[in-house]
Amino acid sequence: MLIEEYVLQLGKNAKKVTSKLAGLDSATKDRALLAIAEGLKRNLVRILTANKEDVVKGIANGLQSNFIERLSLDEERIESMITGLRELVKLEDPIGDVEKMWRRPNGLEIGQIRIPLGVVAMIYESRPNVTIDAAALCIKTGNAVILRGGSEALLTNQVLVEVIREALEELALPPDAVQLITFSEREAVLALMKMNDYVDVLIPRGGAGLIKTVLNNSTVPVIETGVGNCHIFVDQTAEIESARQIILNAKTQRPSVCNAVETLLVHKEIAPLFLPPCGDDLKRVGVQIRGCPQVRKYIPWAKEANDEDWETEYLDLILAIKVVTDFDEAVSHIARFGTRHSESIITTDYYHARRFLQVVDAAAVYVNASTRFTDGYQFGLGAELGISTQKLHARGPMGLEALTTLKYIIYGNGQTRE
Amino acid sequence: MLIEEYVLQLGKNAKKVTSKLAGLDSATKDRALLAIAEGLKRNLVRILTANKEDVVKGIANGLQSNFIERLSLDEERIESMITGLRELVKLEDPIGDVEKMWRRPNGLEIGQIRIPLGVVAMIYESRPNVTIDAAALCIKTGNAVILRGGSEALLTNQVLVEVIREALEELALPPDAVQLITFSEREAVLALMKMNDYVDVLIPRGGAGLIKTVLNNSTVPVIETGVGNCHIFVDQTAEIESARQIILNAKTQRPSVCNAVETLLVHKEIAPLFLPPCGDDLKRVGVQIRGCPQVRKYIPWAKEANDEDWETEYLDLILAIKVVTDFDEAVSHIARFGTRHSESIITTDYYHARRFLQVVDAAAVYVNASTRFTDGYQFGLGAELGISTQKLHARGPMGLEALTTLKYIIYGNGQTRE
Repeated sequence: MLIEEYVLQLGKNAKKVTSKLAGLDSATKDRALLAIAEGLKRNLVRILTANKEDVVKGIANGLQSNFIERLSLDEERIESMITGLRELVKLEDPIGDVEKMWRRPNGLEIGQIRIPLGVVAMIYESRPNVTIDAAALCIKTGNAVILRGGSEALLTNQVLVEVIREALEELALPPDAVQLITFSEREAVLALMKMNDYVDVLIPRGGAGLIKTVLNNSTVPVIETGVGNCHIFVDQTAEIESARQIILNAKTQRPSVCNAVETLLVHKEIAPLFLPPCGDDLKRVGVQIRGCPQVRKYIPWAKEANDEDWETEYLDLILAIKVVTDFDEAVSHIARFGTRHSESIITTDYYHARRFLQVVDAAAVYVNASTRFTDGYQFGLGAELGISTQKLHARGPMGLEALTTLKYIIYGNGQTRE
Repeated sequence: MLIEEYVLQLGKNAKKVTSKLAGLDSATKDRALLAIAEGLKRNLVRILTANKEDVVKGIANGLQSNFIERLSLDEERIESMITGLRELVKLEDPIGDVEKMWRRPNGLEIGQIRIPLGVVAMIYESRPNVTIDAAALCIKTGNAVILRGGSEALLTNQVLVEVIREALEELALPPDAVQLITFSEREAVLALMKMNDYVDVLIPRGGAGLIKTVLNNSTVPVIETGVGNCHIFVDQTAEIESARQIILNAKTQRPSVCNAVETLLVHKEIAPLFLPPCGDDLKRVGVQIRGCPQVRKYIPWAKEANDEDWETEYLDLILAIKVVTDFDEAVSHIARFGTRHSESIITTDYYHARRFLQVVDAAAVYVNASTRFTDGYQFGLGAELGISTQKLHARGPMGLEALTTLKYIIYGNGQTRE
């Protein structure tokens, strides 16, 4: 009950400052971002000391090494947070834009103006840079944010949020624009998910388990992010050299992220020519292959794939490969096992390219490119809060606009309805 | 369990036709709408007979007269459904529009294309015209729809959906594009709210109770519609004649709908001049007034308002009135008691007009006009599925675009990420 009251209080604090934040002009918000960048610089030692404590604890608690890697900060990583803040300053502030405005026959002028969502809550796991990214994007869009990072990063996040709040206070801006939930208990997250009166949207960023819990329990509207069981379909007419490079890139350039490819589908007509060199490419960089029986004809060292492989997001140097009879089988496989994140076809066939773009249901559908481009920076949005795999509100990489909504404004001169 | 399986089957049927529906061209979809219009005409007697049975049952079951009124069809109401379908044909089909497309430095061409949501589920109460409206809007946008109307309109809705499905079959289109849940049990709705694998969005249309139940129980994304505790603030500088007409219109032109005004806020400086004639206007047309003590100084016959009045959506010829000290008190009152639907200020003060538009948080914010204009047709959207009072995805009157989403399409020529 104590925890619930605490989280409720954070919600009330956030709500209280929304109106002030919504009214800030762009220059003031950008000054706040630069002040945070300065603060990070000035407090380097303080941040690294807190982070070291988190890391030592994490190791003592037996956290996996990839977890520790994501948790750890060094000067370079803080420098990249600072660069991110400076880049964000350069982006255009979407708040206050009137997207359209039209006049009705009765003289009413009706427009849609872009405004902040209000209070954003963010639940995430180990990486402390999300703390800075999320706070900065919310400040830039005039939203208040309530952060709930992973318990293993608590000390780091506490210092980062202190630095942010100090910067806001320096500029006489309300520090409650950015608040951190410091309770590690699960009850804190549950409370957050039910605070419809104080939280406008909840964004979970992390593993499939976290996202599922939030989707099943939240009455606050949720933006679902990130699980990616992505496919590449090598069509009969693919250029083999290009396909090999794309697959190598999509699997190995950074295997631990959601836009890495997990299953390769290969047209049976091109399989004899394509699979042997592709297998060699992958072997050379240490990728394990789980293949269907036909794949194992061409890549004898591949392990046999079972049904589970088709639905697994490995996030690792493992690739499932299946030979398919035709375009339709590839598309059906994606419809059945895909998570609607990123899907790509490698082809030189005009109609197949068009049909793939049309019928495949995913946030991002590619022709002849690596799935690894599904990313706010790569798309040119300039910033990213996560990748939405849902259909409502925002789909794909979420930039500043995903943190805004539109309201109708109507200028009249006494109109009444007939 | 039987009911759950039945609803699940409808979900599967719907999902199965989504790809076909998404690929239909505009001309085909418009032909379907015209075929439905023809079907309604041809089956007039059949529809009216079924409706009569519903009405007789409703009266026998002691339904309130306003319920019976909303349930009842006659030739004119069916004619207006037919007109609605023909108007919808004239609107532009948003599906397939590429909203933007840009080229990245690496040569990738990235665009956003408008596509259907997929499967829409709609839960609504007595009015049978919603059956036709919802089906038609979903067909026009290439969505499959699962309808769950009020049990008191079941026979009418069954015939209407039969007519729709017959029209689709005539054109060799999949009839499962439009399905009706014929079970009246609550379990059917509960099942629908958990079908995340088969339903992309759930839209409840009806009273506050229905909407709350859906919000609290649905794991499927919801678009919240309609509760409207709308305010008009008569500022110190308001033109009194214009204010009187706007208030009369907003309260009495159709009191039973969500965009009717429920509370009037009056600046204390204008109260002595404004309230007596305004009270007379309202008395003349039979509007009851619930006022604060100051109001009762100027309108002695007004009843005393209590706290509950400030939060009540009367949907009736009753108006709450409160005298406020200044602009800020009016805005605070709206922030506290408003339901974020429609809010209006009557003023001649430039800065108050601008500030009201900026700080009031609602789907539609007006200056010098009746709140009754918050409506898809009045806004010029050409069609309306309901009025969203939430912030994500769609806010305010929802037209065709609210039933669509965007997906990223990316044209490459072998790009890999560095």
